[in-house]
Amino acid sequence: MQKIPGYDIVYFGDTAHTPYGTKSPETVIGYTVKNIEFLLSRGAGVIVIACNTASSVATAQVLERFAVPIFEVITPAVELAVNSSRTFRFGVIGTRATVTSGIYQKKIIERQPAAKVYSIACPLLVPLVEEGWLRKPETAMIIKKYLQPLKARQIDALILGCTHYPLLKAVIQRKIGRRVHLIDSSISVAEDLKRFLDHHVEIDRQLAQNGRLTLFVSDVTDQFQKIASMTLKTNATFECVKI
Amino acid sequence: MQKIPGYDIVYFGDTAHTPYGTKSPETVIGYTVKNIEFLLSRGAGVIVIACNTASSVATAQVLERFAVPIFEVITPAVELAVNSSRTFRFGVIGTRATVTSGIYQKKIIERQPAAKVYSIACPLLVPLVEEGWLRKPETAMIIKKYLQPLKARQIDALILGCTHYPLLKAVIQRKIGRRVHLIDSSISVAEDLKRFLDHHVEIDRQLAQNGRLTLFVSDVTDQFQKIASMTLKTNATFECVKI
Repeated sequence: MQKIPGYDIVYFGDTAHTPYGTKSPETVIGYTVKNIEFLLSRGAGVIVIACNTASSVATAQVLERFAVPIFEVITPAVELAVNSSRTFRFGVIGTRATVTSGIYQKKIIERQPAAKVYSIACPLLVPLVEEGWLRKPETAMIIKKYLQPLKARQIDALILGCTHYPLLKAVIQRKIGRRVHLIDSSISVAEDLKRFLDHHVEIDRQLAQNGRLTLFVSDVTDQFQKIASMTLKTNATFECVKI
Repeated sequence: MQKIPGYDIVYFGDTAHTPYGTKSPETVIGYTVKNIEFLLSRGAGVIVIACNTASSVATAQVLERFAVPIFEVITPAVELAVNSSRTFRFGVIGTRATVTSGIYQKKIIERQPAAKVYSIACPLLVPLVEEGWLRKPETAMIIKKYLQPLKARQIDALILGCTHYPLLKAVIQRKIGRRVHLIDSSISVAEDLKRFLDHHVEIDRQLAQNGRLTLFVSDVTDQFQKIASMTLKTNATFECVKI
């Protein structure tokens, strides 16, 4: 909305099936396929998989299955990380599914064969964020414990490999140390998409530009409404759909 | 298996959709109906809803929908709690869905109108158990924080209103104090079922008694296998089914 304003956005949050990060690749692929089918049925012309777990395990399958342009959040994070590192010693934190996939390791080495990549699964961070425990001492303790093995590795860039983690940026920065660049792909995926649309005029022309934001989720609870309005800073309402 | 040995058991764990405790009643009801349909299709003659969230929000609906005997875990916990309390000051801990439903409060007051019931949602305990963080200091800190408001209420019985919590019994007991009875319905639901079968010979006669345990789940990950064999102390394998 900030980087390429004016376009209609259809958002779908699969809250009836979250979290994805603790589930198997097969299950996450199944959900991702259904989510994309839903977005296409609502008129989407370009898809952004704004979830590291789905991006990690399902991108290859959905690229094969769907003819529309599909963006994921791994590649822009790798690009940003490689460009901001001097020592090519990288840390990656993510869900268990993302870390097990080995996708960050693979893509970083492709871009920079001399790189060292150290990955840690941090499965408790998603529930902590969803509880809104962003500034609690227990959260800081858990983050410290997760980051301990990375501190010894002298990384100079740490990829926040889960879309929940930027909400914990301040405490992660404090625990990993000031010299480490924190890499968050949210802005660069929007920039990638902008560049793509600038170069693909035919596709761009087909996208509605009435600045309309439509939010769908597959489950709504009071807690979700509370955290969503806190995070999104919008009063937009979510429509619940069973897909 | 211990209380009424010999009966065939068909187990289904809906791991593709868990956790239930953070989701809306409508969504949990939908999952519970599908789970029971699956168990019936596999020959189950009696259903035990071995989950407090599903028991709290879906029991009324499934009783209306299915003709088989259905057991849930709330009523036996209330019975145990009322029988073990002297002051009738009760604490209940559970998922957000269970606590929001108000079911424990309602059932305790029905049994004992003079009772005081204090309920606290503890949504982080399920992910902590599923991570296997049973003895970590962070888990103890979080439990202490959750139980703080209950300590001031001078309860003498605390209902462990989630099937994950008995795995944290030792630390919960330490944090709430030795004088408080911890109420875990797992054994009494099996005893209720035993009594039911003793009195319903016709139903009992239709149940297979080859001592066969069949385990189904809707998603399998390495982490699940690890925690399951740690918890169940069995090498039984889980068959993955999409329902």
